[in-house]
Amino acid sequence: MFITFEGIDGSGKSTQARRLATHLEQSGRDIVLTREPGGSAGAEEIRRLLVEGDPGRWSAETEILLFTAARRDHLERTIRPALEAGKTVISDRFADSTRVYQGATRGDLRAVVDALHAQMIGMEPDLTLIIDMDPDEALARGLARRSGEDRFEDMGASFQHRLHAGFRALAADFPNRCRLIDGNRSVDDVATDVLQAIR
Amino acid sequence: MFITFEGIDGSGKSTQARRLATHLEQSGRDIVLTREPGGSAGAEEIRRLLVEGDPGRWSAETEILLFTAARRDHLERTIRPALEAGKTVISDRFADSTRVYQGATRGDLRAVVDALHAQMIGMEPDLTLIIDMDPDEALARGLARRSGEDRFEDMGASFQHRLHAGFRALAADFPNRCRLIDGNRSVDDVATDVLQAIR
Repeated sequence: MFITFEGIDGSGKSTQARRLATHLEQSGRDIVLTREPGGSAGAEEIRRLLVEGDPGRWSAETEILLFTAARRDHLERTIRPALEAGKTVISDRFADSTRVYQGATRGDLRAVVDALHAQMIGMEPDLTLIIDMDPDEALARGLARRSGEDRFEDMGASFQHRLHAGFRALAADFPNRCRLIDGNRSVDDVATDVLQAIR
Repeated sequence: MFITFEGIDGSGKSTQARRLATHLEQSGRDIVLTREPGGSAGAEEIRRLLVEGDPGRWSAETEILLFTAARRDHLERTIRPALEAGKTVISDRFADSTRVYQGATRGDLRAVVDALHAQMIGMEPDLTLIIDMDPDEALARGLARRSGEDRFEDMGASFQHRLHAGFRALAADFPNRCRLIDGNRSVDDVATDVLQAIR
Protein backbone atom coordinates (compact mmCIF):
# COMPACT_ATOMS: atom_id res chain seq x y z
CA MET A 1 0.00 0.00 0.00
CA PHE A 2 1.32 3.40 -1.09
CA ILE A 3 -0.33 6.41 0.60
CA THR A 4 0.50 10.05 -0.14
CA PHE A 5 -0.35 13.31 1.61
CA GLU A 6 -0.75 16.45 -0.50
CA GLY A 7 -1.61 20.10 0.07
CA ILE A 8 -0.05 23.53 0.30
CA ASP A 9 2.84 24.25 2.69
CA GLY A 10 1.58 24.87 6.22
CA SER A 11 -1.57 22.77 5.70
CA GLY A 12 -0.53 20.30 8.41
CA LYS A 13 0.03 17.39 6.03
CA SER A 14 3.47 16.50 7.47
CA THR A 15 2.01 16.29 10.98
CA GLN A 16 -0.83 14.10 9.69
CA ALA A 17 1.59 11.83 7.79
CA ARG A 18 3.60 11.28 10.99
CA ARG A 19 0.44 10.64 13.04
CA LEU A 20 -0.80 8.07 10.53
CA ALA A 21 2.61 6.34 10.40
CA THR A 22 2.68 6.06 14.21
CA HIS A 23 -0.89 4.77 14.32
CA LEU A 24 -0.27 2.08 11.69
CA GLU A 25 3.01 1.04 13.32
CA GLN A 26 1.23 0.61 16.65
CA SER A 27 -1.23 -1.69 14.91
CA GLY A 28 1.74 -3.84 13.83
CA ARG A 29 2.40 -2.73 10.26
CA ASP A 30 5.82 -2.19 8.76
CA ILE A 31 5.84 1.48 7.70
CA VAL A 32 8.23 3.60 5.68
CA LEU A 33 7.51 7.31 6.24
CA THR A 34 9.15 9.40 3.55
CA ARG A 35 8.85 12.77 1.78
CA GLU A 36 9.34 14.71 -1.44
CA PRO A 37 11.33 16.34 -2.73
CA GLY A 38 13.76 13.94 -1.07
CA GLY A 39 13.31 10.56 0.54
CA SER A 40 16.60 9.07 -0.69
CA ALA A 41 20.19 10.29 -0.32
CA GLY A 42 20.40 11.67 -3.86
CA ALA A 43 16.90 13.14 -3.88
CA GLU A 44 17.61 14.99 -0.62
CA GLU A 45 20.55 16.69 -2.38
CA ILE A 46 18.27 17.72 -5.25
CA ARG A 47 15.76 18.98 -2.63
CA ARG A 48 18.18 21.65 -1.46
CA LEU A 49 18.39 23.05 -4.99
CA LEU A 50 14.58 23.24 -5.17
CA VAL A 51 13.34 24.52 -1.80
CA GLU A 52 16.13 26.94 -0.86
CA GLY A 53 17.12 30.26 -2.41
CA ASP A 54 15.54 32.79 -4.68
CA PRO A 55 12.11 32.05 -6.24
CA GLY A 56 13.51 32.92 -9.68
CA ARG A 57 16.51 30.61 -9.56
CA TRP A 58 14.82 28.01 -11.82
CA SER A 59 12.19 28.23 -14.54
CA ALA A 60 9.09 26.07 -14.15
CA GLU A 61 10.39 23.74 -16.88
CA THR A 62 13.76 23.19 -15.17
CA GLU A 63 11.90 22.60 -11.90
CA ILE A 64 9.79 19.86 -13.52
CA LEU A 65 12.97 18.10 -14.62
CA LEU A 66 14.60 18.42 -11.18
CA PHE A 67 11.48 17.21 -9.34
CA THR A 68 11.18 14.27 -11.73
CA ALA A 69 14.88 13.42 -11.25
CA ALA A 70 14.44 13.47 -7.46
CA ARG A 71 11.25 11.38 -7.76
CA ARG A 72 12.95 8.79 -9.97
CA ASP A 73 15.73 8.34 -7.39
CA HIS A 74 13.20 8.23 -4.53
CA LEU A 75 11.18 5.62 -6.40
CA GLU A 76 14.18 3.41 -7.27
CA ARG A 77 15.93 3.54 -3.91
CA THR A 78 13.18 3.96 -1.30
CA ILE A 79 9.58 3.45 -2.50
CA ARG A 80 9.86 0.39 -4.79
CA PRO A 81 12.18 -1.61 -2.50
CA ALA A 82 9.84 -0.94 0.46
CA LEU A 83 6.70 -1.93 -1.45
CA GLU A 84 8.41 -5.06 -2.78
CA ALA A 85 9.31 -6.00 0.81
CA GLY A 86 5.61 -5.79 1.71
CA LYS A 87 5.86 -2.53 3.64
CA THR A 88 3.36 0.33 3.62
CA VAL A 89 4.86 3.55 2.26
CA ILE A 90 3.53 6.93 3.42
CA SER A 91 4.96 9.90 1.50
CA ASP A 92 4.59 13.57 2.38
CA ARG A 93 4.07 14.78 -1.26
CA PHE A 94 4.54 12.87 -4.53
CA ALA A 95 3.74 13.45 -8.22
CA ASP A 96 0.51 15.38 -7.53
CA SER A 97 2.57 18.25 -6.10
CA THR A 98 4.38 18.63 -9.44
CA ARG A 99 1.03 18.50 -11.28
CA VAL A 100 -0.31 21.36 -9.11
CA TYR A 101 2.82 23.48 -8.47
CA GLN A 102 4.53 23.35 -11.87
CA GLY A 103 1.79 21.92 -14.09
CA ALA A 104 -1.06 24.26 -13.10
CA THR A 105 0.29 27.14 -11.02
CA ARG A 106 3.76 28.24 -12.11
CA GLY A 107 2.78 27.73 -15.76
CA ASP A 108 0.30 25.99 -18.03
CA LEU A 109 2.55 22.94 -18.16
CA ARG A 110 0.34 20.04 -17.15
CA ALA A 111 0.97 18.24 -20.50
CA VAL A 112 4.74 18.45 -19.94
CA VAL A 113 4.40 17.16 -16.37
CA ASP A 114 2.16 14.28 -17.49
CA ALA A 115 4.46 13.24 -20.35
CA LEU A 116 7.51 13.16 -18.06
CA HIS A 117 5.58 11.29 -15.38
CA ALA A 118 4.39 8.65 -17.87
CA GLN A 119 7.90 8.16 -19.22
CA MET A 120 10.05 8.25 -16.09
CA ILE A 121 7.78 7.44 -13.10
CA GLY A 122 4.70 5.58 -14.35
CA MET A 123 3.03 4.83 -11.02
CA GLU A 124 0.33 6.40 -8.83
CA PRO A 125 -0.40 6.04 -5.11
CA ASP A 126 -3.19 3.75 -3.94
CA LEU A 127 -4.62 6.56 -1.82
CA THR A 128 -3.95 10.31 -1.72
CA LEU A 129 -5.11 12.46 1.18
CA ILE A 130 -5.30 16.14 0.27
CA ILE A 131 -5.32 18.37 3.35
CA ASP A 132 -7.45 21.35 2.32
CA MET A 133 -6.67 24.47 4.33
CA ASP A 134 -7.27 28.21 4.09
CA PRO A 135 -4.28 29.42 2.02
CA ASP A 136 -3.66 32.63 3.98
CA GLU A 137 -3.52 30.81 7.28
CA ALA A 138 -1.35 28.02 5.80
CA LEU A 139 1.09 30.57 4.36
CA ALA A 140 1.36 32.37 7.71
CA ARG A 141 2.12 29.03 9.40
CA GLY A 142 4.61 28.04 6.72
CA LEU A 143 6.48 31.33 6.91
CA ALA A 144 6.43 31.34 10.72
CA ARG A 145 8.67 28.26 10.64
CA ARG A 146 11.51 30.15 8.88
CA SER A 147 12.97 26.79 7.98
CA GLY A 148 15.30 28.17 5.29
CA GLU A 149 13.23 26.07 2.88
CA ASP A 150 10.91 28.94 1.97
CA ARG A 151 11.45 29.26 -1.78
CA PHE A 152 7.85 28.37 -2.69
CA GLU A 153 6.32 30.28 0.23
CA ASP A 154 8.28 33.29 -1.03
CA MET A 155 6.29 33.13 -4.28
CA GLY A 156 3.57 35.01 -2.38
CA ALA A 157 -0.06 34.90 -1.26
CA SER A 158 -1.69 34.88 -4.69
CA PHE A 159 0.52 31.92 -5.64
CA GLN A 160 -0.73 30.08 -2.50
CA HIS A 161 -4.35 30.80 -3.45
CA ARG A 162 -3.80 29.35 -6.92
CA LEU A 163 -2.12 26.27 -5.41
CA HIS A 164 -5.10 25.82 -3.11
CA ALA A 165 -7.47 25.91 -6.09
CA GLY A 166 -5.11 23.56 -7.95
CA PHE A 167 -5.25 20.89 -5.23
CA ARG A 168 -9.06 21.07 -5.17
CA ALA A 169 -9.14 20.60 -8.95
CA LEU A 170 -6.74 17.66 -8.60
CA ALA A 171 -9.10 15.89 -6.18
CA ALA A 172 -11.79 16.13 -8.87
CA ASP A 173 -9.32 14.88 -11.52
CA PHE A 174 -8.53 11.63 -9.68
CA PRO A 175 -11.71 10.87 -7.70
CA ASN A 176 -10.88 7.18 -7.24
CA ARG A 177 -7.70 7.66 -5.24
CA CYS A 178 -7.98 11.23 -3.84
CA ARG A 179 -9.79 12.28 -0.66
CA LEU A 180 -10.12 15.96 0.22
CA ILE A 181 -9.88 16.46 3.99
CA ASP A 182 -10.84 19.70 5.75
CA GLY A 183 -7.63 20.84 7.47
CA ASN A 184 -9.16 23.94 9.11
CA ARG A 185 -9.71 22.08 12.40
CA SER A 186 -7.74 20.63 15.31
CA VAL A 187 -4.96 18.13 14.58
CA ASP A 188 -7.02 15.41 16.34
CA ASP A 189 -10.14 16.07 14.29
CA VAL A 190 -8.18 15.98 11.03
CA ALA A 191 -6.42 12.76 12.14
CA THR A 192 -9.81 11.13 12.76
CA ASP A 193 -10.85 11.91 9.19
CA VAL A 194 -7.54 10.57 7.88
CA LEU A 195 -8.10 7.25 9.66
CA GLN A 196 -11.63 7.05 8.33
CA ALA A 197 -10.34 7.56 4.77
CA ILE A 198 -7.79 4.77 5.28
CA ARG A 199 -10.50 2.35 6.36
CA MET B 1 26.43 30.33 -34.70
CA PHE B 2 26.38 27.58 -32.08
CA ILE B 3 29.43 25.27 -32.11
CA THR B 4 29.92 22.29 -29.77
CA PHE B 5 32.90 20.10 -28.95
CA GLU B 6 32.29 16.48 -28.05
CA GLY B 7 34.37 13.44 -27.15
CA ILE B 8 35.48 11.33 -24.20
CA ASP B 9 37.12 12.88 -21.14
CA GLY B 10 40.82 13.48 -21.75
CA SER B 11 40.40 13.79 -25.52
CA GLY B 12 41.62 17.39 -25.50
CA LYS B 13 38.27 18.91 -26.48
CA SER B 14 38.33 21.57 -23.72
CA THR B 15 41.77 22.76 -24.87
CA GLN B 16 40.53 22.91 -28.46
CA ALA B 17 37.37 24.78 -27.46
CA ARG B 18 39.50 27.42 -25.68
CA ARG B 19 41.89 27.69 -28.64
CA LEU B 20 39.02 28.19 -31.07
CA ALA B 21 37.40 30.81 -28.81
CA THR B 22 40.65 32.78 -28.61
CA HIS B 23 41.19 32.53 -32.37
CA LEU B 24 37.68 33.77 -33.21
CA GLU B 25 37.91 36.57 -30.64
CA GLN B 26 41.18 37.75 -32.19
CA SER B 27 39.40 37.91 -35.54
CA GLY B 28 36.88 40.29 -33.93
CA ARG B 29 33.94 38.04 -33.08
CA ASP B 30 31.92 38.21 -29.90
CA ILE B 31 32.34 34.76 -28.32
CA VAL B 32 30.70 33.02 -25.36
CA LEU B 33 32.76 29.99 -24.30
CA THR B 34 30.71 27.68 -22.10
CA ARG B 35 30.48 24.05 -20.99
CA GLU B 36 28.21 21.21 -19.90
CA PRO B 37 27.16 20.05 -17.49
CA GLY B 38 27.12 23.65 -16.28
CA GLY B 39 27.42 26.96 -18.08
CA SER B 40 24.92 28.85 -15.89
CA ALA B 41 24.80 29.36 -12.12
CA GLY B 42 22.09 26.72 -11.56
CA ALA B 43 23.52 24.22 -14.04
CA GLU B 44 26.92 24.44 -12.34
CA GLU B 45 25.24 23.38 -9.08
CA ILE B 46 23.65 20.40 -10.85
CA ARG B 47 27.09 19.62 -12.36
CA ARG B 48 28.52 18.86 -8.91
CA LEU B 49 25.84 16.22 -8.35
CA LEU B 50 26.73 14.56 -11.68
CA VAL B 51 30.52 14.57 -11.96
CA GLU B 52 31.55 14.06 -8.33
CA GLY B 53 31.14 11.05 -6.08
CA ASP B 54 30.46 7.37 -6.52
CA PRO B 55 29.69 6.01 -10.02
CA GLY B 56 26.59 4.28 -8.61
CA ARG B 57 25.06 7.34 -6.96
CA TRP B 58 22.51 7.80 -9.79
CA SER B 59 20.84 5.42 -12.23
CA ALA B 60 21.19 6.20 -15.94
CA GLU B 61 17.54 7.36 -15.99
CA THR B 62 18.01 9.84 -13.13
CA GLU B 63 21.17 11.08 -14.82
CA ILE B 64 19.26 11.79 -18.04
CA LEU B 65 16.80 13.92 -16.06
CA LEU B 66 19.57 15.80 -14.23
CA PHE B 67 21.56 16.45 -17.42
CA THR B 68 18.40 17.66 -19.17
CA ALA B 69 17.56 19.95 -16.21
CA ALA B 70 21.08 21.44 -16.32
CA ARG B 71 20.86 21.82 -20.12
CA ARG B 72 17.48 23.56 -19.92
CA ASP B 73 18.91 26.12 -17.46
CA HIS B 74 22.06 26.55 -19.56
CA LEU B 75 19.94 27.10 -22.69
CA GLU B 76 17.57 29.60 -21.03
CA ARG B 77 20.15 31.64 -19.19
CA THR B 78 23.34 31.45 -21.28
CA ILE B 79 23.02 29.98 -24.79
CA ARG B 80 19.78 31.55 -26.08
CA PRO B 81 20.47 35.08 -24.74
CA ALA B 82 23.96 35.00 -26.33
CA LEU B 83 22.69 33.75 -29.71
CA GLU B 84 19.90 36.34 -29.66
CA ALA B 85 22.51 39.05 -29.03
CA GLY B 86 24.32 37.90 -32.17
CA LYS B 87 27.22 36.22 -30.36
CA THR B 88 28.92 32.95 -31.32
CA VAL B 89 28.51 30.27 -28.64
CA ILE B 90 31.14 27.55 -28.23
CA SER B 91 30.17 24.82 -25.76
CA ASP B 92 32.41 22.09 -24.38
CA ARG B 93 29.76 19.29 -24.56
CA PHE B 94 26.01 19.54 -25.22
CA ALA B 95 23.14 17.13 -25.92
CA ASP B 96 25.31 14.66 -27.91
CA SER B 97 27.13 13.74 -24.69
CA THR B 98 23.82 12.61 -23.13
CA ARG B 99 23.00 10.64 -26.31
CA VAL B 100 26.33 8.79 -26.07
CA TYR B 101 26.90 8.50 -22.28
CA GLN B 102 23.37 7.74 -21.06
CA GLY B 103 21.58 6.88 -24.32
CA ALA B 104 24.05 4.36 -25.73
CA THR B 105 26.64 3.43 -23.08
CA ARG B 106 25.18 3.36 -19.57
CA GLY B 107 21.98 1.78 -20.93
CA ASP B 108 19.96 1.25 -24.09
CA LEU B 109 18.12 4.53 -23.45
CA ARG B 110 18.51 6.51 -26.64
CA ALA B 111 14.70 6.71 -27.13
CA VAL B 112 14.30 8.20 -23.62
CA VAL B 113 17.09 10.71 -24.25
CA ASP B 114 15.61 11.71 -27.61
CA ALA B 115 12.07 12.14 -26.23
CA LEU B 116 13.29 14.37 -23.39
CA HIS B 117 15.48 16.37 -25.75
CA ALA B 118 12.59 16.96 -28.17
CA GLN B 119 10.29 18.05 -25.35
CA MET B 120 12.57 20.18 -23.18
CA ILE B 121 15.52 21.35 -25.36
CA GLY B 122 14.50 21.13 -29.03
CA MET B 123 17.61 22.62 -30.63
CA GLU B 124 20.86 21.32 -32.18
CA PRO B 125 24.23 22.99 -32.71
CA ASP B 126 25.13 24.34 -36.16
CA LEU B 127 28.44 22.47 -36.02
CA THR B 128 29.75 19.71 -33.74
CA LEU B 129 33.44 18.83 -33.60
CA ILE B 130 34.04 15.36 -32.19
CA ILE B 131 37.62 14.92 -31.00
CA ASP B 132 38.37 11.25 -31.64
CA MET B 133 41.12 9.90 -29.40
CA ASP B 134 42.46 6.53 -28.28
CA PRO B 135 40.30 5.73 -25.23
CA ASP B 136 43.08 4.22 -23.09
CA GLU B 137 45.31 7.24 -23.55
CA ALA B 138 42.40 9.65 -22.97
CA LEU B 139 41.44 7.83 -19.76
CA ALA B 140 45.03 7.97 -18.48
CA ARG B 141 45.08 11.74 -19.16
CA GLY B 142 41.66 12.26 -17.58
CA LEU B 143 42.59 10.36 -14.43
CA ALA B 144 46.02 12.04 -14.20
CA ARG B 145 44.20 15.32 -13.58
CA ARG B 146 42.63 14.08 -10.32
CA SER B 147 40.20 16.94 -10.59
CA GLY B 148 37.72 15.49 -8.10
CA GLU B 149 35.32 15.36 -11.06
CA ASP B 150 36.16 11.75 -11.90
CA ARG B 151 32.79 10.03 -11.55
CA PHE B 152 32.56 9.00 -15.22
CA GLU B 153 36.28 8.17 -15.51
CA ASP B 154 35.77 5.89 -12.51
CA MET B 155 33.34 3.83 -14.59
CA GLY B 156 36.43 2.14 -16.05
CA ALA B 157 38.33 1.37 -19.24
CA SER B 158 35.68 -0.75 -20.95
CA PHE B 159 33.15 2.06 -20.37
CA GLN B 160 35.59 4.48 -22.08
CA HIS B 161 35.94 2.12 -25.04
CA ARG B 162 32.17 1.96 -25.45
CA LEU B 163 31.94 5.78 -25.22
CA HIS B 164 34.59 6.06 -27.93
CA ALA B 165 32.57 3.76 -30.22
CA GLY B 166 29.43 5.73 -29.29
CA PHE B 167 30.89 9.07 -30.42
CA ARG B 168 31.99 7.51 -33.73
CA ALA B 169 28.48 6.19 -34.28
CA LEU B 170 27.07 9.62 -33.43
CA ALA B 171 29.18 11.27 -36.14
CA ALA B 172 27.57 8.86 -38.63
CA ASP B 173 24.10 9.61 -37.18
CA PHE B 174 24.32 13.37 -37.80
CA PRO B 175 26.64 13.68 -40.83
CA ASN B 176 25.46 17.20 -41.71
CA ARG B 177 26.59 18.90 -38.53
CA CYS B 178 29.24 16.53 -37.06
CA ARG B 179 32.94 16.43 -38.00
CA LEU B 180 35.17 13.70 -36.56
CA ILE B 181 38.66 15.06 -35.86
CA ASP B 182 41.68 12.86 -35.14
CA GLY B 183 42.81 13.88 -31.66
CA ASN B 184 45.84 11.54 -31.51
CA ARG B 185 48.19 14.33 -32.63
CA SER B 186 49.76 17.55 -31.30
CA VAL B 187 47.46 20.28 -30.00
CA ASP B 188 48.54 22.51 -32.92
CA ASP B 189 47.77 19.89 -35.55
CA VAL B 190 44.33 19.23 -34.07
CA ALA B 191 43.66 23.01 -33.87
CA THR B 192 44.48 23.35 -37.57
CA ASP B 193 41.85 20.71 -38.42
CA VAL B 194 39.33 22.45 -36.15
CA LEU B 195 39.82 25.75 -38.01
CA GLN B 196 39.47 23.98 -41.35
CA ALA B 197 36.17 22.44 -40.21
CA ILE B 198 34.91 25.90 -39.14
CA ARG B 199 35.66 27.31 -42.59
